[in-house]
Amino acid sequence: MYRPEIKVLDCTIRDGGLINKWQFSDELVRATYKAVCEAGVDYMEIGYKASADMFDPKEFGKWRFCKEEDVREVLDGLELKSKLSCMVDIGRVREEDFLPADQSIFDMIRVACYVKDVDKGIALANHVIDKGYEVTLNLMAVSTNLEKDIDEALAQISASKVPCVYLVDSFGNMYCEDITFLAKKYLQALPGKTVGIHCHNNRQLAFANTIQGIIEGANLLDASVYGIGRGAGNCTLELLLGFLKNPKYNIRPVLKLIEDHFVSLRNQIEWGYIIPMMITGTLNEHPRAAMEWRAGPQKDNYAEFYDKLTMPEIVE
Amino acid sequence: MYRPEIKVLDCTIRDGGLINKWQFSDELVRATYKAVCEAGVDYMEIGYKASADMFDPKEFGKWRFCKEEDVREVLDGLELKSKLSCMVDIGRVREEDFLPADQSIFDMIRVACYVKDVDKGIALANHVIDKGYEVTLNLMAVSTNLEKDIDEALAQISASKVPCVYLVDSFGNMYCEDITFLAKKYLQALPGKTVGIHCHNNRQLAFANTIQGIIEGANLLDASVYGIGRGAGNCTLELLLGFLKNPKYNIRPVLKLIEDHFVSLRNQIEWGYIIPMMITGTLNEHPRAAMEWRAGPQKDNYAEFYDKLTMPEIVE
Repeated sequence: MYRPEIKVLDCTIRDGGLINKWQFSDELVRATYKAVCEAGVDYMEIGYKASADMFDPKEFGKWRFCKEEDVREVLDGLELKSKLSCMVDIGRVREEDFLPADQSIFDMIRVACYVKDVDKGIALANHVIDKGYEVTLNLMAVSTNLEKDIDEALAQISASKVPCVYLVDSFGNMYCEDITFLAKKYLQALPGKTVGIHCHNNRQLAFANTIQGIIEGANLLDASVYGIGRGAGNCTLELLLGFLKNPKYNIRPVLKLIEDHFVSLRNQIEWGYIIPMMITGTLNEHPRAAMEWRAGPQKDNYAEFYDKLTMPEIVE
Repeated sequence: MYRPEIKVLDCTIRDGGLINKWQFSDELVRATYKAVCEAGVDYMEIGYKASADMFDPKEFGKWRFCKEEDVREVLDGLELKSKLSCMVDIGRVREEDFLPADQSIFDMIRVACYVKDVDKGIALANHVIDKGYEVTLNLMAVSTNLEKDIDEALAQISASKVPCVYLVDSFGNMYCEDITFLAKKYLQALPGKTVGIHCHNNRQLAFANTIQGIIEGANLLDASVYGIGRGAGNCTLELLLGFLKNPKYNIRPVLKLIEDHFVSLRNQIEWGYIIPMMITGTLNEHPRAAMEWRAGPQKDNYAEFYDKLTMPEIVE
């Protein structure tokens, strides 16, 4: 698939950090940025920006905060070929945490929110738009929403100045047919805006769903190196670059990065095709229960985990 | 998806045996058959049938040969709820290796061949049809064939009494669009016959492609427990059962089987999302080179493997 509008966003450090509280070495983050640039990837999302007093810096690594000076230090001396992005959650960041864009190392701010919080999401997006950033609004967990609520949220965003909205399969629950249905809905409801896609891999469908998003017209594509990300992880960057035909992309630096850093990282922290994550994806649930199960003593008792989720105590 | 004609075939032991020369313990094979029956799966393919003098029984386990007495011994005392199948390669089995179907424990024989050998495949299929078996013809590696040769093979099969033909993505190279294209072609060329689908997972597309096959009309679906199979492996049985809505299927016995046997097996032998297998899939090549690389001292040198395959010496 070659369409000049298509852009790729690497979310390796931001989404991967959900596994290890963003405790990546500076060396790994720097190597990832270098490889992402060499691979021709358009954006790299290097973490979440959160107010420093809302999380304990002893517990969380620097990519939970994305302070300007930390990013500049780790990337010092590198040519900033790929644009830099950070994600913000509403309620976990303050307006004064953002420099004006022309003083910032960041090019893009991505605002994540649930459908129920879309007003707050738009308000925060407006603030960062006014500060001069490229902005996206990422509507999370829409596989759990009623269609009328999604429609209402899209109508509100359509009337706003937010230029880009993400279709997000937070729980790794969607089939290609769901992507088609929602991507058509988003594009129809948001004339003139860009639609992005971010898929989770609980059922080994993140890559297939991302391709389906491309076919339907999504032009901003999320992926991560070796698929790293919370739980089952994401669409892998190397698969996506192998699919896209745009000659600006090059898979080789990503292969080298996996070989140098991510094979050993995968032996330290866990992501990928893991049965409890597959089960929460199939059941359209947050991976929280699966992650707790995997941290416990019975982590490989899959049938018992399945029973726990499918035969809960009766609620009247 | 619920369509009463849909049937599932488990190829765990047959395809998984390509990794370890069919050296599975009797206990694992018996447990797999039990779980497959409890899960409501229609067929289990327990191995390849090959003439005993063509392979060394010291090197290859009993599921390379599928002798009637071996199958009966390992499954002794179990109710044979799921039908039993074995695969044959042309040239590696003789006509006298097949008992008449009414004396055999096998219900189905699957004949695998390349497009160039379709005449031989049809001849062998005819022989086992005449002996009373259900029969499929599995056309391998069609992603490497010219369309005119596929068309000619399908026309020959259409004129034969072979009742079922498999669309096979041997190298894990196909996208959903390729599945759509070929499934439509097969169904159109083979009126009145069943089309099956067998996908490999080199690019994490085996499950998505199997779903696409179902959408297009494939009614016989291959999958394996935990995705075991040569190289990247297959569509996983647990994902497929989670997708199918037919109430006869039950995912839980498969989850228990994975927990009891396949997690530890995966620590002994390798399959799944492995970068060299992803590379051969992307390049539409047999996984042979990837398997050799993984068996060597530089198994995690992915960039070098990529270079080797994409920058070979110039051939004039």
